[in-house]
Amino acid sequence: MTPKLSAFLRDSAPATPCLVLDLDRVEENYRRLKAAMPLARIYYAVKANPAAPVLDRLVGLGSCFDAASFEEVEACLEAGAAPESISYGNTVKKESAIRAAYGRGVRMFAFDSEPELRKLARSAPGSRVYCRILVGNDGAEWPLSRKFGCEVEMARELMVLAGELGLDPFGLSFHVGSQQVNTAAYEAAIAKVAMLFTDLRDAGVKVRMVNLGGGYPVRYRQEVPEIDDIGAAIMGAMAEHFGNALPDILVEPGRFIVGDAGVVSAEVVLVSRKAKDDPVRWVYLDIGRFGGLAETEGEAIKYAFRTPRDGEAEGPVTIAGPTCDSTDTLYEKSNYRMPLSLDAGDRVELLATGAYVTSYASQFFNGFKPLAEHYV
Amino acid sequence: MTPKLSAFLRDSAPATPCLVLDLDRVEENYRRLKAAMPLARIYYAVKANPAAPVLDRLVGLGSCFDAASFEEVEACLEAGAAPESISYGNTVKKESAIRAAYGRGVRMFAFDSEPELRKLARSAPGSRVYCRILVGNDGAEWPLSRKFGCEVEMARELMVLAGELGLDPFGLSFHVGSQQVNTAAYEAAIAKVAMLFTDLRDAGVKVRMVNLGGGYPVRYRQEVPEIDDIGAAIMGAMAEHFGNALPDILVEPGRFIVGDAGVVSAEVVLVSRKAKDDPVRWVYLDIGRFGGLAETEGEAIKYAFRTPRDGEAEGPVTIAGPTCDSTDTLYEKSNYRMPLSLDAGDRVELLATGAYVTSYASQFFNGFKPLAEHYV
Repeated sequence: MTPKLSAFLRDSAPATPCLVLDLDRVEENYRRLKAAMPLARIYYAVKANPAAPVLDRLVGLGSCFDAASFEEVEACLEAGAAPESISYGNTVKKESAIRAAYGRGVRMFAFDSEPELRKLARSAPGSRVYCRILVGNDGAEWPLSRKFGCEVEMARELMVLAGELGLDPFGLSFHVGSQQVNTAAYEAAIAKVAMLFTDLRDAGVKVRMVNLGGGYPVRYRQEVPEIDDIGAAIMGAMAEHFGNALPDILVEPGRFIVGDAGVVSAEVVLVSRKAKDDPVRWVYLDIGRFGGLAETEGEAIKYAFRTPRDGEAEGPVTIAGPTCDSTDTLYEKSNYRMPLSLDAGDRVELLATGAYVTSYASQFFNGFKPLAEHYV
Repeated sequence: MTPKLSAFLRDSAPATPCLVLDLDRVEENYRRLKAAMPLARIYYAVKANPAAPVLDRLVGLGSCFDAASFEEVEACLEAGAAPESISYGNTVKKESAIRAAYGRGVRMFAFDSEPELRKLARSAPGSRVYCRILVGNDGAEWPLSRKFGCEVEMARELMVLAGELGLDPFGLSFHVGSQQVNTAAYEAAIAKVAMLFTDLRDAGVKVRMVNLGGGYPVRYRQEVPEIDDIGAAIMGAMAEHFGNALPDILVEPGRFIVGDAGVVSAEVVLVSRKAKDDPVRWVYLDIGRFGGLAETEGEAIKYAFRTPRDGEAEGPVTIAGPTCDSTDTLYEKSNYRMPLSLDAGDRVELLATGAYVTSYASQFFNGFKPLAEHYV
C-alpha cells in the first residue's frame, strides 16, 4: 500500500466498501513499463479501470489506449485522448459500434475472423487492422480460453484478404493470459508470430506491427518476476526472431498499470463458525464476488489482506462476501489465515485491487450498491 | 415464451440486450405455488428480481417478502408491503442494517451464528428469529456451499440462547439448493428439522415455524418435476414428521416466481470459427456472463435459445458474451447447437431468464451498460 493510500484511509475513513486508487502509482507503473520496454508503445487496457482520473493521468503521460467497446472509445476521447491513439481491440464488435468509432476518428481495429474483417472493410474503410492469433497461456493465473484469436493458417489468409478488401493489414496480436508469470509464454508466442510475419512478407503483405497484448503480472500474495526482467526476455525474443528489422511493438497493459495502485477498503460483517469446535472461521466482508471481486472466481487471483489485528495469533478462515448467494465466496481452498481476534466492524484492506474491480461490480445484486471509488 | 412476451418483442422490437418480463406470468406462478402448497406462506426472494413492477404485483397478491439487505427491505416497503410481511433472510447483516430494518418495523430475522444472534438481541430486541441449518444439496443444479447455515447441535444451543437474549426463537430454516429437482432433498431436510424441532420443544423452546427456503425449479432445457408433485412430496414429509402439529410453514421462492416469466432478447454480434475446417462455430451475443447471465458460470444453468432460423440445419456452437474477458463464455461443453445460417445481426431469445439476471449485471464492464428492463 502506498503512503498516499494509507494516509487517505487513515484521515478520511471512507464508507466501505470502496476502492481508493493512487494516481501517482499509476504514473509510476506507466514509467516503469516504459523503461522496461522502451521500444514498445503502451496501449492502456481501459477495461482494467475506466475511471476518468486514470484516463486523464495517462493521457497526460502520452499513453495510447486499448478500448473494448465504443463506450470505452468515448471515455478515452472525453479524457482528451487523440483518436489516433486509440486501438479498438475487441475482436467482437457490432458493426454499428465500428461505424461509430470510425466516425470519431479511430483507425485501428482488431479482428480474428472473416465476418469481422468484412464488417471493418464496410464500416471502417482503409483502417489499420491487426489479426489476433491463438497462443499458449501456460503460466497465467487468469488464463484465457480460445474465445479470442484464430489459428495461424487462418490468420495468414485473413491478412491477405484484409489488403484485398482495402484495409491496411497492419499487424498481428496475441495474448499470453493475464497475470502471466512465465516469460517463456511470451517467447513461444513471439516465435509463432515471427514465422507468420515472414510468411506474410513473402506473400507480399507488408505487416509492420506486433501487439504483445497484456498479462504483465502484479504482486498479490506471491512474488512475481520484475517487469525489467519480463521486458528483457520479451525484447530478447523480439531481437532473436526479428533481428534488426524490428516491427512496431505495442503492449496492452491493464492490471500492471492500475493493479497495485489501488486498495479496497472493506468491513468485516461477521466472523462465525459452522459448529462450535470447527477450527475454520467464516469471515464475511461487505464486498464479495458480485461487489467487484470477480477475479476471485475459482480462487484465481489471490489478494493479500491487511487487518487491524495483524501480528496477533492467527487461524484458518474461509472468506466470503455479503450476499445471499453461496457462490459469493472468495477463498475456501487457498489456505488463508486471519487473526483470531478479528471481529465484526473491523476494517480490512485488500491490497493491489486497482484492476478489474469497479467495472465488474454488479449494479445492485441483493440490493447492495457498487463500491464507491476515490482517486487520490 | 408467453403470448404477451412474443407480442411485445414483435411489436416493440426493443433495443438489445434487454429483459422483457410478463407480470401476468408472475401472478400465475404465485398462484400455482400457492395451490401446490396451500398451507405455506410465500416469501418472495426479492433478490431474484427486485424490480418495482414485480414487487407491486406480488404485494397486490398478498405475498410476503424475503429480503437480503436493508435496501431490499426498503424496496418492499416502497412497493407497499407491510413491515410484518418482510423477513430479513440474510444470516450475514451489518448491525446498522439490522437497526435500520427494525426501525422500519421489520420483526423477523434469520441467523446462523452466535455473533449474529447477539447483534439481533441488541438491535432488533424481541424480534422473531429463525436459525438456518446446514442440509444436503444433492440434486440441485445450482447447489449451495456451506456459506449459510450451521450444524444442528449449534442451532439447538443458539435457539435456546435466543430466548435467553429476549428474542422470540420462532423457527428453523434450511435451503436445499437452487433449481432443486430432487424432492428427496426436501424430505431429508424436513426429517432433520423435525428432530431438532422435537429436541427444542423438549428443552422448553416454543419453536413454531419451519422455513423451507427456495429452490423450486424452472424449466430450462430439461423438463423438471411439476410444482404440484414437489408440493405434495413436501407436504407429505411435513405430515409424516410433524403429524397433526404442523408448524407455520414458510417458503422463499425466487426463481420459481419470476424465472419463466422473463425472456432476454439479444443480438448475435459475430459468428466465426477458429480455423477454416473447425466444425464448431463461436456465436458471440451482446449479453454474457457479466451482462446478467451470471448463472451460466460453470455452465450450471442451461438456458434454452430461440433464433429466427430455428428449424434449419444445425451445427455445434460455443456461445460467448461480448466482452474482452475470456471467462465471458456461456456454453462450451453443454452441446449447444444452432442453425448454420445464424448470422451477425440476428435476434435471439434466451427463454426463462426472468430470475437472477438484471441484478447480477455489472454496472459497466468493458463499457457496456446493464441490460434494459421491460415489464409488460
